[in-house]
Amino acid sequence: MDTGADLVRLRELVRAFVAERDWEQFHTPKNLSAALSVEAAELLEHFQWLQTGEGAELGDDKLRQVRHELADVFFYLIRIADRLGVDLDAALQEKMVLNREKYPADKVRGSSRKYNEY
Amino acid sequence: MDTGADLVRLRELVRAFVAERDWEQFHTPKNLSAALSVEAAELLEHFQWLQTGEGAELGDDKLRQVRHELADVFFYLIRIADRLGVDLDAALQEKMVLNREKYPADKVRGSSRKYNEY
Amino acid sequence: MDTGADLVRLRELVRAFVAERDWEQFHTPKNLSAALSVEAAELLEHFQWLQTGEGAELGDDKLRQVRHELADVFFYLIRIADRLGVDLDAALQEKMVLNREKYPADKVRGSSRKYNEY
Amino acid sequence: MDTGADLVRLRELVRAFVAERDWEQFHTPKNLSAALSVEAAELLEHFQWLQTGEGAELGDDKLRQVRHELADVFFYLIRIADRLGVDLDAALQEKMVLNREKYPADKVRGSSRKYNEY
Repeated sequence: MDTGADLVRLRELVRAFVAERDWEQFHTPKNLSAALSVEAAELLEHFQWLQTGEGAELGDDKLRQVRHELADVFFYLIRIADRLGVDLDAALQEKMVLNREKYPADKVRGSSRKYNEY
Repeated sequence: MDTGADLVRLRELVRAFVAERDWEQFHTPKNLSAALSVEAAELLEHFQWLQTGEGAELGDDKLRQVRHELADVFFYLIRIADRLGVDLDAALQEKMVLNREKYPADKVRGSSRKYNEY
Repeated sequence: MDTGADLVRLRELVRAFVAERDWEQFHTPKNLSAALSVEAAELLEHFQWLQTGEGAELGDDKLRQVRHELADVFFYLIRIADRLGVDLDAALQEKMVLNREKYPADKVRGSSRKYNEY
Repeated sequence: MDTGADLVRLRELVRAFVAERDWEQFHTPKNLSAALSVEAAELLEHFQWLQTGEGAELGDDKLRQVRHELADVFFYLIRIADRLGVDLDAALQEKMVLNREKYPADKVRGSSRKYNEY
């Protein structure tokens, strides 16, 4: 198995969709990051008045909509990474190494404070 | 190759990081969607005063920071999908089918209008 | 008393601050709406892991920071309204009339559903 | 003229609207800051694929919608300030003093860099 093969496949799927519509012209990193924020907010909208958004509180119909919002966020995340030449798989693995340093498990366990608040 | 194997691997990486810190208690779908929006905005902040954010305008140092923001967005996207039982790979593929219907290539080519504005 | 006099005074304060720095060139409606989203997310960040953000849970130090974030949001809101020629006072009053129609008190009392979910 | 009288009037307008609908129960600072982010993103959505959003590029119909989004942002800004006991007028004036120190006009003129990048 090639590491990252799934993300490469999805990146190509997204890239073809965009090319068929001649939308590359709109897909600057700036515009894509705005679109990503907009989609993230559409996801948040489903949860804004709920307590936690767990199972029954969300409900099946809303979960289906939330699933679509997650897909939209993923679409723009893949697309902006593609435009900037970023390998999302490698970037996340590297960031996890940094986060392990910033948030040592024995120091932060059970606390949600920010790393600069310890 | 198992389809989605990379995302399963990353999901487990994220899940372990969270469990080691006993952070599951904070990771309600609602809180995670707020965190995702916050990270998406931190990404957007890098581009807000730029023209397009292409190559030279962004610069290498900023690109490194942007790469980290993309990883943070990916982290929360994977995490919220995990908490809601959503398969991101399948969700994106399904959404692309719907988007192909909403935005037929021969109708929308070269236009950035929203589907309900045609 | 002139209705809207306070907002006119604040608009002038913001306008002078921007002019002294020759920042009008960056203040397109698009850029300002991105900046507004970024500031709104910085506000949200203070609350993302809290239960409600009420009094003691937030704390005095965080409240002071939150106050600054609210000011930043207000700054960009006033600024974008100025650039688009929108009277915020009149706009809010008009929107409240529309909201009273969309959300009749006797119909929506105690429910947080969206107007199109009734 | 009482300084801040307009904002007090608008705060009361918003407060009455919420009370009539028994929505105080949903209006925690956390939920309101999420709602503010969502409304800010709805504003941004109108501009995401535009160059600048100036006059003709936006158009009259969109401007009317944008005006409503600005009112929605203002609504939640006033509401969260009310819930936290923050005087928006005073907060903005104080923040402008701080911003004048962070961004001295003779140092930052014509540059959009962040204060910690000088």
